Amino acid sequence: MRSILFAALGVSLAAACQAQDAIEVELTAEEIASADAPDWRDVSAENLILVETVHGDVVIELNPDFAPNHAAQFRDLVRGDVYNGAYFYRVIDAFVAQGGLQDETVIETHPTLINENDRPLSDAAFVPLGNADLFAPVVGHIDGFAVGRSETLGTEWLLHCPGALAMARDTDPDSGGTEFYIVLDAQRYLDRNLTVFGRVIDGMQYVQKLKRGDRAIESGVIQAPEVGDEIRSMTVAADMADAIRPAYQVQAVPSQAFEDAKTEKRVREEDFFYRKPPEVLDICGFEVPMRRLPTRPRD
Amino acid sequence: MRSILFAALGVSLAAACQAQDAIEVELTAEEIASADAPDWRDVSAENLILVETVHGDVVIELNPDFAPNHAAQFRDLVRGDVYNGAYFYRVIDAFVAQGGLQDETVIETHPTLINENDRPLSDAAFVPLGNADLFAPVVGHIDGFAVGRSETLGTEWLLHCPGALAMARDTDPDSGGTEFYIVLDAQRYLDRNLTVFGRVIDGMQYVQKLKRGDRAIESGVIQAPEVGDEIRSMTVAADMADAIRPAYQVQAVPSQAFEDAKTEKRVREEDFFYRKPPEVLDICGFEVPMRRLPTRPRD
Repeated sequence: MRSILFAALGVSLAAACQAQDAIEVELTAEEIASADAPDWRDVSAENLILVETVHGDVVIELNPDFAPNHAAQFRDLVRGDVYNGAYFYRVIDAFVAQGGLQDETVIETHPTLINENDRPLSDAAFVPLGNADLFAPVVGHIDGFAVGRSETLGTEWLLHCPGALAMARDTDPDSGGTEFYIVLDAQRYLDRNLTVFGRVIDGMQYVQKLKRGDRAIESGVIQAPEVGDEIRSMTVAADMADAIRPAYQVQAVPSQAFEDAKTEKRVREEDFFYRKPPEVLDICGFEVPMRRLPTRPRD
Repeated sequence: MRSILFAALGVSLAAACQAQDAIEVELTAEEIASADAPDWRDVSAENLILVETVHGDVVIELNPDFAPNHAAQFRDLVRGDVYNGAYFYRVIDAFVAQGGLQDETVIETHPTLINENDRPLSDAAFVPLGNADLFAPVVGHIDGFAVGRSETLGTEWLLHCPGALAMARDTDPDSGGTEFYIVLDAQRYLDRNLTVFGRVIDGMQYVQKLKRGDRAIESGVIQAPEVGDEIRSMTVAADMADAIRPAYQVQAVPSQAFEDAKTEKRVREEDFFYRKPPEVLDICGFEVPMRRLPTRPRD
């Protein structure tokens, strides 16, 4: 059985989760209230973006609640076909994959956006992760997105975890508009300085396959005569025919299923762990579960 | 200039580093003593393993100081050509890429190893990272490898950061021997439970391109008739002819260059950061600089 490392680790630990004292994970009022809440949330087709790459399809959920103007402009650009045939032209391993129009004269024909790097603390259902974080006073989730919060600052913001979709910019915090990047490895020091406006919910493996540039040469921009990997097309799912439109659900936050998913990763009860790991999660190392629903014609 | 996100970030911040108060990063005696130490350490050709994949070459440094028996057996297996033509047969995005012999009857012809998951606290030159960690009481570096330490346990161990090379096993902690994995995203909860015995120092971008399995199906093992991406060959650099043998250096630990590299990532002085990020590093988000030397015939 040596060939199958951690064979037991993919198995759901329902029994262990049941035995876990709920108080230990610091349930909030919202979480407790969620005992009867549904376990899954439908991703709105208006917020679901399909990115067809040369390696496979990447699926993004936009977050208009945190970044309404960025989500709206990105959706408009996708609908205007501006990214079709464009490239991931600046890709640095373990950092980010940046795509967009690249040509500065073309970029300048599109409006820049006032940054939406954070927002005032909201009354959205925030579920704390339940342990410390290196970069923010409090971290947790809102609607499946990783969020940082500060009572002192009075703000909350989306985090630069792997898969985060954010807007590139120049030195001016309000200079971004068309050039986007997808975070490959966590880059938490960028939090609050750039606008995260979505996240990859499926297909990160294809983002990881994108051709890299050399960070030491023009900050990772892939150099001619080579070009980066092409964006064959981008589509807003809402614009697709019913029969072919993909449908996704993300685990509901708060929900008991979400608490169980975190506990399964935080508390390792399997015999495999002969030494018990610390009962802690890195917010960027925990993927909120999602699922793709079968596509079918409307009844 | 909007097309080039963070154009300034690749630039060395020598000026800023000079201005930084050295006391703030908690220099150890070893670090202070290192002011005159060389900035680079040669990687021994006996510890340098070249992995030729279908996507490109991956370069590993073994760590016989922490895991002498694992490093020795792996080197022997490479020299015995057992991995040539084998596959990365279990690859889970954001988790690990596992390769090896896969066939259990073949695996059983090779010896298992007593785990080398940690070792007693040593007097090796340990340079603390200089800030807190979520998983270990103290973290830092020895010889460019990320290390965790506990005075209470009296031990130190290599960390499951991206690029770590470790040995897969069954439930028995001493059941590994031939099946290895490379960490894709940090998996710190595996620390002290499995033996890390090396790390990728070059070519992680090619590891990231490896064909993935589906974690939900047989724990991510790629299912027939498909096979994982092939390991075309593995070679110990010491066995190569002088004229073609690659030579690598890793930034010396301790050294002033290493302290400067950490400060550059920890303290963001650029105007780009209109909000100063927390002055903190995640041990798994900091890559120790390395460089490949020009290959040349011996004089």
